[in-house]
Amino acid sequence: MSKDEKKKIDTDSNIIYVGNKPPMNYVTAIMALLNSGNFTEVVIKARGNAISRAVDAAEITHNRFLTNAEVKSIDIGTETVTNEDGRKSNVSSIEICLAMKKTDG
Amino acid sequence: MSKDEKKKIDTDSNIIYVGNKPPMNYVTAIMALLNSGNFTEVVIKARGNAISRAVDAAEITHNRFLTNAEVKSIDIGTETVTNEDGRKSNVSSIEICLAMKKTDG
Repeated sequence: MSKDEKKKIDTDSNIIYVGNKPPMNYVTAIMALLNSGNFTEVVIKARGNAISRAVDAAEITHNRFLTNAEVKSIDIGTETVTNEDGRKSNVSSIEICLAMKKTDG
Repeated sequence: MSKDEKKKIDTDSNIIYVGNKPPMNYVTAIMALLNSGNFTEVVIKARGNAISRAVDAAEITHNRFLTNAEVKSIDIGTETVTNEDGRKSNVSSIEICLAMKKTDG
């Protein structure tokens, strides 16, 4: 696999998983997906403490960079995760769908 | 003001502000409001890192305690806050509306 191929964002999926990196990392990933021309919407997913970062990334994207994008839907839920020591615990999750506004013509 | 009055939850408002306390504190506050009979829905608000705790509180409430409550709507936004040193910064916010399901009859 060449370097170029490695750097390419996986354009088969329009899902961005938000973790512990700075919010701007996810903002650039969201913008790359929306500007690729393959998708008119992205789904931003996060669990636990990363939920607030997912909201940050969505807000920064459509307030500062892609003002023609809008929050289409938000969904919250609970997922069961198995810890390293085998115990199960519940963790909250969020899915934010960010879509490009339809333009006339 | 008597002790009893102090303990009473402010039943004029159906807004719960989520901060840095453990999620269960907010769960009990939500349940108290919904069980008071004054409101059929509560609005759970949070900013910044507390956003994930607000989602936790909403999820715990309707999954474990009030299974006849449901998430009616979720809204995210950005608020401008002035820091202690006078600088302004943006912070993400969330509003989760939790409502009792309508029962027949």
